[in-house]
Amino acid sequence: MTITIIGLGLIGGSLAISLKENGFAKTIIGVDHNPENIDKAFRRRLLDETMDLAEGIRRADLVVVAIPVNSMVTLLPEILDQVTTQIVIDVGSTKEKILQAVADHPRRNRFVGTHPMAGTEHSGPEAAVPNLFDRKACVLCETEKSDPDAVEIVEKMYQTMEMKMVRMDPVEHDVHAAYVSHISHLSAFALALTVLEKEKNEARIFELASGGFSSTVRLAKSTPNMWVPIFAQNQENLLDVLDEHINTLAKFRTCLIKKDFTQIYKLIEKANSIRKILK
Amino acid sequence: MTITIIGLGLIGGSLAISLKENGFAKTIIGVDHNPENIDKAFRRRLLDETMDLAEGIRRADLVVVAIPVNSMVTLLPEILDQVTTQIVIDVGSTKEKILQAVADHPRRNRFVGTHPMAGTEHSGPEAAVPNLFDRKACVLCETEKSDPDAVEIVEKMYQTMEMKMVRMDPVEHDVHAAYVSHISHLSAFALALTVLEKEKNEARIFELASGGFSSTVRLAKSTPNMWVPIFAQNQENLLDVLDEHINTLAKFRTCLIKKDFTQIYKLIEKANSIRKILK
Repeated sequence: MTITIIGLGLIGGSLAISLKENGFAKTIIGVDHNPENIDKAFRRRLLDETMDLAEGIRRADLVVVAIPVNSMVTLLPEILDQVTTQIVIDVGSTKEKILQAVADHPRRNRFVGTHPMAGTEHSGPEAAVPNLFDRKACVLCETEKSDPDAVEIVEKMYQTMEMKMVRMDPVEHDVHAAYVSHISHLSAFALALTVLEKEKNEARIFELASGGFSSTVRLAKSTPNMWVPIFAQNQENLLDVLDEHINTLAKFRTCLIKKDFTQIYKLIEKANSIRKILK
Repeated sequence: MTITIIGLGLIGGSLAISLKENGFAKTIIGVDHNPENIDKAFRRRLLDETMDLAEGIRRADLVVVAIPVNSMVTLLPEILDQVTTQIVIDVGSTKEKILQAVADHPRRNRFVGTHPMAGTEHSGPEAAVPNLFDRKACVLCETEKSDPDAVEIVEKMYQTMEMKMVRMDPVEHDVHAAYVSHISHLSAFALALTVLEKEKNEARIFELASGGFSSTVRLAKSTPNMWVPIFAQNQENLLDVLDEHINTLAKFRTCLIKKDFTQIYKLIEKANSIRKILK
């Protein structure tokens, strides 16, 4: 099958590696508005061919759109305009606004809304890695509005990477994504800023920062080009979770001020039950 | 050399593995008030021998105290009471209160205050791992109050694991530790509580939680037995950093409410400069 990947960043590039490697794609066509990304992608051998958007869509059996979620909303309807029998999927981190953008399109039936839940703090074709998606969860939304053959092929594609399919309403998806992904990023950005603000002497952080610090703030390296549009599209849910998070931190703050370490012990014990959830 | 390790948890156990493996210790004596820990430590072959505290001190060339920092404050003076030529070190995550506890002891000169900055979210002898300390930073405090031969041997010991020695005032240490370690833990505990609170449907988190979430909250698995005493001893510094962190989150909150995504972009760009600091 010929797969055209639009957007050759971390997600598009990593998909290109996996789908070529496992043979699901015979040909990978790469499309990107940034010629530097195309150069890099070729140097990393992520692609078989490149061409303009219209030709890339025409030649494809399956079009994967892997661009920031704000661009998704404008580009997806334009892509569907050019589709006959091709399948089009998005891989965006929000689902409600994206699915709204194509809801009334006459070719909505050729579209499948997906969110393969994998990533790293790096971006661009140079960040593409093999096995990024292996055994992770992949959310599919509103599959009842897509042609059954399109859904079947998309599921097969993700299953070549042993992804676990989860069907979910787009509104529900965005709520969950705010909890398990978006707030983690916001918290990491804030923690990095806090430490950078307070620690003028950066060399000291560098000397002392150990594994715990690195893992808690590593997401703070993530690019605003990807994350600002996500925060914008999921603003309401993110705000709810952020309010709750600030309230929780305020609880710890009150306990610290009162030196109520018995209560802090109880809070930490409760937090420990995350062990059941995280491997 | 015979090394007696008091407290056979993650840190004590991991030191036992490394120092035996690299030959710095000929004999490892393990002391723990919990007989279960001693059993586990023997089953994991962390120890050569066990005995009571007094005998363990008598037989040692070097005594490593690796217990929660609150117990450190009471036990260290008692250990120094029994010392003649032995060297005693602590490996606690706070330094000011610990060094205060031994400041006026007649055998203060045989003591060296250290903080090897390494750890994981796991605890107990079963959490001990090889290479935990390799190439990490190790803070030494107030070495001018210790006998030069004691400091030299302790440095040699840490250098067998290629640790980077950093001399620091205990007050300065505790300020830096609040930034690069303690706030990360507090933030992870709070984030875990936030998500657990909001997400009643734990199965959904389990399905969707990907690498980003796991890395941001993994420290929330850490035991309160270790962390409550650290928070208590470093209460003032931690409170300062926590206030700053809550303020930073409140900035994001205000931007989200105002939908000022230009400002959020700037904040994230600034947070990205943590890239210079974290490998």
